[in-house]
Amino acid sequence: MSEAVETSYGALKVMDSGEFAGWRFWEGDPFETRSGPFYYRREEDGSYTSAFRAEARHMNGGGFMHGGCLLTFADFALFAIATDALAGDHAVTLNLAGDFLGSVQSGALVEARGEVTRGGGKTIFVRGLVTGDGSPALSFTGIIRRLSKR
Amino acid sequence: MSEAVETSYGALKVMDSGEFAGWRFWEGDPFETRSGPFYYRREEDGSYTSAFRAEARHMNGGGFMHGGCLLTFADFALFAIATDALAGDHAVTLNLAGDFLGSVQSGALVEARGEVTRGGGKTIFVRGLVTGDGSPALSFTGIIRRLSKR
Amino acid sequence: MSEAVETSYGALKVMDSGEFAGWRFWEGDPFETRSGPFYYRREEDGSYTSAFRAEARHMNGGGFMHGGCLLTFADFALFAIATDALAGDHAVTLNLAGDFLGSVQSGALVEARGEVTRGGGKTIFVRGLVTGDGSPALSFTGIIRRLSKR
Amino acid sequence: MSEAVETSYGALKVMDSGEFAGWRFWEGDPFETRSGPFYYRREEDGSYTSAFRAEARHMNGGGFMHGGCLLTFADFALFAIATDALAGDHAVTLNLAGDFLGSVQSGALVEARGEVTRGGGKTIFVRGLVTGDGSPALSFTGIIRRLSKR
Repeated sequence: MSEAVETSYGALKVMDSGEFAGWRFWEGDPFETRSGPFYYRREEDGSYTSAFRAEARHMNGGGFMHGGCLLTFADFALFAIATDALAGDHAVTLNLAGDFLGSVQSGALVEARGEVTRGGGKTIFVRGLVTGDGSPALSFTGIIRRLSKR
Repeated sequence: MSEAVETSYGALKVMDSGEFAGWRFWEGDPFETRSGPFYYRREEDGSYTSAFRAEARHMNGGGFMHGGCLLTFADFALFAIATDALAGDHAVTLNLAGDFLGSVQSGALVEARGEVTRGGGKTIFVRGLVTGDGSPALSFTGIIRRLSKR
Repeated sequence: MSEAVETSYGALKVMDSGEFAGWRFWEGDPFETRSGPFYYRREEDGSYTSAFRAEARHMNGGGFMHGGCLLTFADFALFAIATDALAGDHAVTLNLAGDFLGSVQSGALVEARGEVTRGGGKTIFVRGLVTGDGSPALSFTGIIRRLSKR
Repeated sequence: MSEAVETSYGALKVMDSGEFAGWRFWEGDPFETRSGPFYYRREEDGSYTSAFRAEARHMNGGGFMHGGCLLTFADFALFAIATDALAGDHAVTLNLAGDFLGSVQSGALVEARGEVTRGGGKTIFVRGLVTGDGSPALSFTGIIRRLSKR
């Protein structure tokens, strides 16, 4: 845990065991931690993958992952995907939109990948795809707004 | 609790005490219950109001309500707003989009109101507004797809 | 036409005859003029209504108004609805999203109404509804970004 | 023009000269033809590219391509991208959302590429990107609904 980065928004830590050993996660975000926790890592090609393992507590009454859980994860993934564009700055989400493509069941590996479609300025545009065991679950777009240097 | 309606998606119950006494809620939706629970009621004008009380567990690392919490509540409100259009049918969310208008702090009364912009057919369109203590927090639109008679 | 307001983006004029006599329109926006022209006016309650008359040239191959025409009109209406929030400032559209609710046929009076869900700052959020002869045609949301004082 | 395919929605033709020789376009869609015409072709990898050349008539009052023009082209591209998923069926747009990433000037080659994020059923989900001379201009998502066999 020596790699933790403390910010006013919580502490960015690195998992040291389990399925997501070596992946980063945030401590100090109550809703995200309760919904997840969600993890992300930088891939060799410079892109960022977000992931978590679906459990019964993420499901809706029909036994599929709740749309709100998918969108909460997408909101997390927005910031993971924009890691380099943000360069440590804080930001807020202006818009998040999702198309629900398919269901995710308990036990599935849930992943999000995407790209910054426009960065550089104060307004950062992202699009991405959430999959469950590799099958498309949510197509999302988001707009985040850089606030200030941390 | 004698008013509970059992469906394959859970049980629709009525709160019998507390701030939301008389409001309906769903039992049997793990993610929604953990995120909320959220409540809704039919108003005298025939519209549906959804509500819950913001707590520390709904906040993000910045001390404001997490966007995923607002969207999870909006997904709940979509179906509350579409109660009459659905007439008891099951449905799934095809699209949910939100514009984040303002922050919500712990302790606030969070409410959602809206209208069906097109119902009647298999595809139902909804728009709504989530407020925190009366201030705009999230403008949302959603498309839900009727599945079948329950 | 003495009421025309000249800006670097064109001239805001007032129609002096025809169905939209007394309504404002922009001169100097080639795509908008070719698609429309579209008109708007301030109502007594302070809201802004946008309108035009559907013609054969606005239709798609199926004989209904083209989705692109509805969205072009919605983009116009975004700025009409935000007239007071903009207070003469220039702005650009960051996001425009539309749910297609119903078809519009040639000859229909097409109108758009809506509200600013959040103004005041640099980012202005709008939602609105386009109707054809009073029937819902397009539910839209938009985010515009104030650029500078004119 | 012997390759024209006649449908109740117009005739699908192939350009026989000019910059888009060999590309397909629709005849009989008044708004699209006036806004464009827009062209598309099948690439060797099975994807579909849409394109047109920006002219002064596509610009707004600021001298950049009008957002409505970009969205009209995106609506065209939705159906081009979904060509194989549609397999000749008619369809309508349920939702079209766009993030405006950058400006396009007169003279630019405007292209759209994308993918079906979910096809197969009655509801087809698409996402894509419009570029101007290769620079990102519009990120879009769309939902189309299959109507019937032609």
